[in-house]
Amino acid sequence: MRYELYYWGEIQGRGEYVRLALEDAGADYVDVARKANGTGAMMKLMEQKRGTPPFAPPFLKAGKLLIGQTANILLYLGARHGLAPKTEGGRLWLHQLQLTITDFVLEVHDTHHPLGPSLYYEDQRAPAKKRTEEFWNERVPKYLGYFEDIVTANGAAYVTGRRATYVDLSLFQLVEGLRYGFPKRMKAFEADIPRLVALRDRVAERPNIKAYLASDRRIPFNESGIFRHYRELDG
Amino acid sequence: MRYELYYWGEIQGRGEYVRLALEDAGADYVDVARKANGTGAMMKLMEQKRGTPPFAPPFLKAGKLLIGQTANILLYLGARHGLAPKTEGGRLWLHQLQLTITDFVLEVHDTHHPLGPSLYYEDQRAPAKKRTEEFWNERVPKYLGYFEDIVTANGAAYVTGRRATYVDLSLFQLVEGLRYGFPKRMKAFEADIPRLVALRDRVAERPNIKAYLASDRRIPFNESGIFRHYRELDG
Repeated sequence: MRYELYYWGEIQGRGEYVRLALEDAGADYVDVARKANGTGAMMKLMEQKRGTPPFAPPFLKAGKLLIGQTANILLYLGARHGLAPKTEGGRLWLHQLQLTITDFVLEVHDTHHPLGPSLYYEDQRAPAKKRTEEFWNERVPKYLGYFEDIVTANGAAYVTGRRATYVDLSLFQLVEGLRYGFPKRMKAFEADIPRLVALRDRVAERPNIKAYLASDRRIPFNESGIFRHYRELDG
Repeated sequence: MRYELYYWGEIQGRGEYVRLALEDAGADYVDVARKANGTGAMMKLMEQKRGTPPFAPPFLKAGKLLIGQTANILLYLGARHGLAPKTEGGRLWLHQLQLTITDFVLEVHDTHHPLGPSLYYEDQRAPAKKRTEEFWNERVPKYLGYFEDIVTANGAAYVTGRRATYVDLSLFQLVEGLRYGFPKRMKAFEADIPRLVALRDRVAERPNIKAYLASDRRIPFNESGIFRHYRELDG
């Protein structure tokens, strides 16, 4: 079965967590909105009245299923492609971690959009600065410290043990994103999360991920995505 | 099996979506942090290094499982208590809707905390006003309009058909919360979502929910929760 991934074609954004899972799994998929007329096809699926219209991208067409919400897509893919534990408890735990990553990603977005997603960054620069300060003082240490502790406690290569999961791929993406968005702040902070950095390196060396990152399927970070580099926010 | 729910004992907050599901199902559970020494027990579970420490409340102890993240708990409970469809596709769709509610709940929270969760409301009144304006102009119509369309399209009593699900219970809570937090704005807006209001009434009449709402197990809304009433934000 060839999956169809629907996500904005110009950014990594939330779609990237799904792309990384599909790529690592070597799954057969098409990134629809990067093809001609793809964005129109995506909008059409969102505007359907019947069926299961997604609220927002990303969503995945898998045979007859149309699955929305990043963590929900990963829940589905993880079970099918060996990127999640086999037990119910293990899968719930992994999904719980992914939902915590989802929360963090929204807080990343709020650093440049504290007054809401419909206004431009340029119209909320001062509150963005305040929110970013709080983000780095309170939230980054809390979230990344939490994941660092989990990897430390299990003493293994990946977050649930010896085998990589979709959460490990997502943690890779968080480290990459923070490095891009806040190079100075992140450089100073990385000393506090040595195990997450090692996990990031391990993911980067996985053959399918390595090939993906070197390909033009990997869209470069830019100032339309979730992780944005605004010099004045980098402290 | 008696479930143990762990959530802050003084607020509805995110725990309320779980409480409503447990109550509607007539499940045997204890709301731990509302008992003597319960909050201490909750903190201890969060601070454990081994096992599966939750990032934040709510979390549910179900036998040997410790399940965190509201939507993840509902995914687990829904399957066990007839509050979700039986097919994989139906369950993924319902979970997707709950994750969209999760996103909305975070945006509700951001109306009074646009500069982040660690600062007091009193220190972010002006940005809160701006964010709230955008929330009511753009986000409420988008989110609630989405759910209104789904209920309209299926022409049924509840979001997936004739049977109530945990998403219906959560939609009830959203309507209640918006009525509490923004009585003036919500009163004007309700004309646009007649089917959601009817769904809210239907949920309120379910015998177990009715009994719950009349009991002291239902904590009143207050200004420590997600939905807060600040007169200056009600337009």
